[in-house]
Amino acid sequence: MTIARRYTLTITCPDRSGIIAAVTGFIAEHGGFITEASYHTELEAQRFFMRQEIRADSLPFDAETFREKFKPLADDFDMAWQLTDSANKKRLVVLVSKQDHCLDDLLHRWRSGELQVDIPCVISNHENLRSFVEWHGIPFIHVDMASNDPASKENAFQHIAALFDQHQGDAMVLARFMQILPPWLCQRYPGRVINIHHSFLPSFVGAKPYHQAYQRGVKLIGATCHYVTDELDAGPIIEQDTVRIDHGDTPDDLVRYGRDIEKTVLARGLRYHVEDRVLVCGNKTIVFR
Amino acid sequence: MTIARRYTLTITCPDRSGIIAAVTGFIAEHGGFITEASYHTELEAQRFFMRQEIRADSLPFDAETFREKFKPLADDFDMAWQLTDSANKKRLVVLVSKQDHCLDDLLHRWRSGELQVDIPCVISNHENLRSFVEWHGIPFIHVDMASNDPASKENAFQHIAALFDQHQGDAMVLARFMQILPPWLCQRYPGRVINIHHSFLPSFVGAKPYHQAYQRGVKLIGATCHYVTDELDAGPIIEQDTVRIDHGDTPDDLVRYGRDIEKTVLARGLRYHVEDRVLVCGNKTIVFR
Amino acid sequence: MTIARRYTLTITCPDRSGIIAAVTGFIAEHGGFITEASYHTELEAQRFFMRQEIRADSLPFDAETFREKFKPLADDFDMAWQLTDSANKKRLVVLVSKQDHCLDDLLHRWRSGELQVDIPCVISNHENLRSFVEWHGIPFIHVDMASNDPASKENAFQHIAALFDQHQGDAMVLARFMQILPPWLCQRYPGRVINIHHSFLPSFVGAKPYHQAYQRGVKLIGATCHYVTDELDAGPIIEQDTVRIDHGDTPDDLVRYGRDIEKTVLARGLRYHVEDRVLVCGNKTIVFR
Amino acid sequence: MTIARRYTLTITCPDRSGIIAAVTGFIAEHGGFITEASYHTELEAQRFFMRQEIRADSLPFDAETFREKFKPLADDFDMAWQLTDSANKKRLVVLVSKQDHCLDDLLHRWRSGELQVDIPCVISNHENLRSFVEWHGIPFIHVDMASNDPASKENAFQHIAALFDQHQGDAMVLARFMQILPPWLCQRYPGRVINIHHSFLPSFVGAKPYHQAYQRGVKLIGATCHYVTDELDAGPIIEQDTVRIDHGDTPDDLVRYGRDIEKTVLARGLRYHVEDRVLVCGNKTIVFR
Repeated sequence: MTIARRYTLTITCPDRSGIIAAVTGFIAEHGGFITEASYHTELEAQRFFMRQEIRADSLPFDAETFREKFKPLADDFDMAWQLTDSANKKRLVVLVSKQDHCLDDLLHRWRSGELQVDIPCVISNHENLRSFVEWHGIPFIHVDMASNDPASKENAFQHIAALFDQHQGDAMVLARFMQILPPWLCQRYPGRVINIHHSFLPSFVGAKPYHQAYQRGVKLIGATCHYVTDELDAGPIIEQDTVRIDHGDTPDDLVRYGRDIEKTVLARGLRYHVEDRVLVCGNKTIVFR
Repeated sequence: MTIARRYTLTITCPDRSGIIAAVTGFIAEHGGFITEASYHTELEAQRFFMRQEIRADSLPFDAETFREKFKPLADDFDMAWQLTDSANKKRLVVLVSKQDHCLDDLLHRWRSGELQVDIPCVISNHENLRSFVEWHGIPFIHVDMASNDPASKENAFQHIAALFDQHQGDAMVLARFMQILPPWLCQRYPGRVINIHHSFLPSFVGAKPYHQAYQRGVKLIGATCHYVTDELDAGPIIEQDTVRIDHGDTPDDLVRYGRDIEKTVLARGLRYHVEDRVLVCGNKTIVFR
Repeated sequence: MTIARRYTLTITCPDRSGIIAAVTGFIAEHGGFITEASYHTELEAQRFFMRQEIRADSLPFDAETFREKFKPLADDFDMAWQLTDSANKKRLVVLVSKQDHCLDDLLHRWRSGELQVDIPCVISNHENLRSFVEWHGIPFIHVDMASNDPASKENAFQHIAALFDQHQGDAMVLARFMQILPPWLCQRYPGRVINIHHSFLPSFVGAKPYHQAYQRGVKLIGATCHYVTDELDAGPIIEQDTVRIDHGDTPDDLVRYGRDIEKTVLARGLRYHVEDRVLVCGNKTIVFR
Repeated sequence: MTIARRYTLTITCPDRSGIIAAVTGFIAEHGGFITEASYHTELEAQRFFMRQEIRADSLPFDAETFREKFKPLADDFDMAWQLTDSANKKRLVVLVSKQDHCLDDLLHRWRSGELQVDIPCVISNHENLRSFVEWHGIPFIHVDMASNDPASKENAFQHIAALFDQHQGDAMVLARFMQILPPWLCQRYPGRVINIHHSFLPSFVGAKPYHQAYQRGVKLIGATCHYVTDELDAGPIIEQDTVRIDHGDTPDDLVRYGRDIEKTVLARGLRYHVEDRVLVCGNKTIVFR
């Protein structure tokens, strides 16, 4: 499962002809070997999106030089772009409350090497998961959010943001973190805060979605992994899935089925994000799987 | 695929102990052979639901006598119940507009013998499907709904109700009928008007749900078969399903994927209804598959 | 998620009329409150199968007395039957090799209370999972199987059987245990050894099924949870599922997708087994979900 | 749903760097506007595969000139390639026996404009579907295959091949055609004869797969769309899918569920083939969806 070091180039720019030729021409000119290539045109926005994976050892220079040499071409096409190096693992700061099914799943994928990231710390507003997290050798940080006093809440979120910055987090993962982030925090890290919501959005926004689903009598339930914006449960959707239920299932059964689907949907969404497969266009995502 | 004649007994009553024993005791006492038995307790409503299929030839009397003999027991338990005879096919009156994918699917299941019903007529507000319907030997009735004049619309719906009654319809199937039924019509046939809505309800109620889904950037789309009530797209759900899409799919692609899922969801919902597998409890359904 | 104590009665006997009435009559006579009831007739075998869940507190006697009183009726109908008490948790002895995704999933469900069982020990032919298992407070027992000497292997399996008996195991769970059990061991615990095989059986029996699937170019891969018999990967199937792959997926990708489906399929199969929902008929299972 | 005319360029060649740049450079040089681009490297075979869709009106020449100008580049890279023009619809010759669910589905997609092909004729070894096919204005040709005399069978297949050639068929679709094609016929049209097999291959090759599945007690059944080769049910797989069944389903139920999945799997497979999305590599397919 060792994958050779690679650079991932993601680009978005106004659509026109010749973009693929220019970019792949640039890569070929330097002997670059493309291992994966994906393209998409967003028709309404008239924007083009692309993602290239290039074997690092096929290029005669490093990522920094790549960026310097590529910049003139990128400017010509008015590109927003980035080049990442698989040798630099992304740093995920994980937030949880009491429930640990998503955390357990995420940490297993991490320790088995399936999810190639660093986890500098896990932050929680409860203490119950300390021992499990610390068994992994990962620092566990408790942030008190028990008080309903707004100033106290605000302090707690300031603390969380400070911890995220101090640990140089690339992404903040809300792995069933049952507190609503304040707007300033959502706006501070656009496209970098990832939540798992336990319903098939846009159905059943907000609290107790499984109970809402039970009351409505739906025949499938779902989960949604999305980027957090300052509108609750309304950010760009990265991944979703559903599972069949029936009239015999109680709300507790829905919660139980839901846990399994939350785990897989969050894991897939995280994988796409970590591998730079997700590009945002307005309130939608392009996911180059 | 010939299935022996059978009686189907469906019951709902307040929950208490001894119901199954009493009903199956009654059937056994007369030598009845149960081929399928399903039970459910709706916890909130404290109501019990059951469905029994009995081989008709195992009983020494006909359905009418069964009903007479069973009545005292049913009264003891305060049951709402019915007994149907598979020899009496249900009569489905089908309403369509221009699109024929659900109609084609339904008529194929009917002519192949998979769907054991009678179809006394197909009613449409367009003419384009006349030849196809008539090839099947089924009367095609055009009802003009082109005018936006409310009185004209009302006349058209009066005509539809009259046709339904005249053809002794058991159920009215809206197989992509693109007109909203007036409340009086919904209320006149409770639990007997079946619609296929082209979204995974409760998401995307109303018009152009695939375009709504495209705008929201969901990663799966769905379809919902439900009983029609006077609140738009809010009646008891019989069956639903979803299918995966991605960022490369246009609204037209969603419409195309959607057709396939509409066909299967409507077909399954109809089958459950026709075989008396659907019991309604408030705004939810129990579906004894 | 606390569920009231209940008795589960599972029965199989030759099919005839009156069985349901007799059994539910017996339960009703003693005031028993049935919370779940399932029936099935296996047509070819002409055998009847049933499962009843009864609220323990609705009966005036304990499980032992139930068994005594029920025996004459069971004998009349020539029943094979058992009554279990949810207060007596089943004891699962878990066998693993090096890979821990199924073990991690299983232990999480156990410690969260979702899987209501006792796990007296985990047995492995490797040492790498000791710390993780012991963190849970569960004894970890290493059985050396590195030698290819048949006598040594045989000793190891004798040891495993002795451990299973000594820990009073109800079921032996092969959670990706990469050793083939000898026939005598399979025969000693019929319907009690549960395996997860990493293919959609009967396709790709034996070693490296994901590589076999890759070579054949299938478009979905799967996993199968089954009872172990002395014929390799051919025992009664409890649960299966599949997941879509495509041409871009390498064998390593298939292994990764496969892990997720192995976990869910094993978890579902185990749940059905633990809740006495699985009845075996020849080489097939009836699963009363 | 009108899609602008486009050229589809499909290529396979030995893998090396610079292929994408060369091809997209060629297209860009002539002002070509790429609307869809897909790439794949088959690692074991060390071969590269690509598919480009180009808006026809963006190029200053027609398909024939494109081919001439592209040939030198193609030769340089040792490419096997083709360019198709969406204005030239593919011609599908459809073979059926008695069952019509796949035929009905296919003809509905054809007459609704979803499947953009010509159907010059339908060939059958039975007469029962004549009226339905002819209602569509498509010639129905009966070929007698009732005799078990080998010479008579051989004549029938010679007749079928002659009809296919005479109608200038691009692909032969076996839409539940229950006769085994002779090896010479399979070899004559490699990658052009498409079958729907009613099992999840490689499980349950040959006759009565649903009954085989029932006997084995599997928990899902499936269908497979594949290119026909001279080894029975062993050709390159284009598309597959599965559906859940349970112990209560009879072989007749499996047949019924199966019909729905056969229809969708064949429809998807055909669509991929017709849109030149399927490239064959050994006994596997690359499907650029």
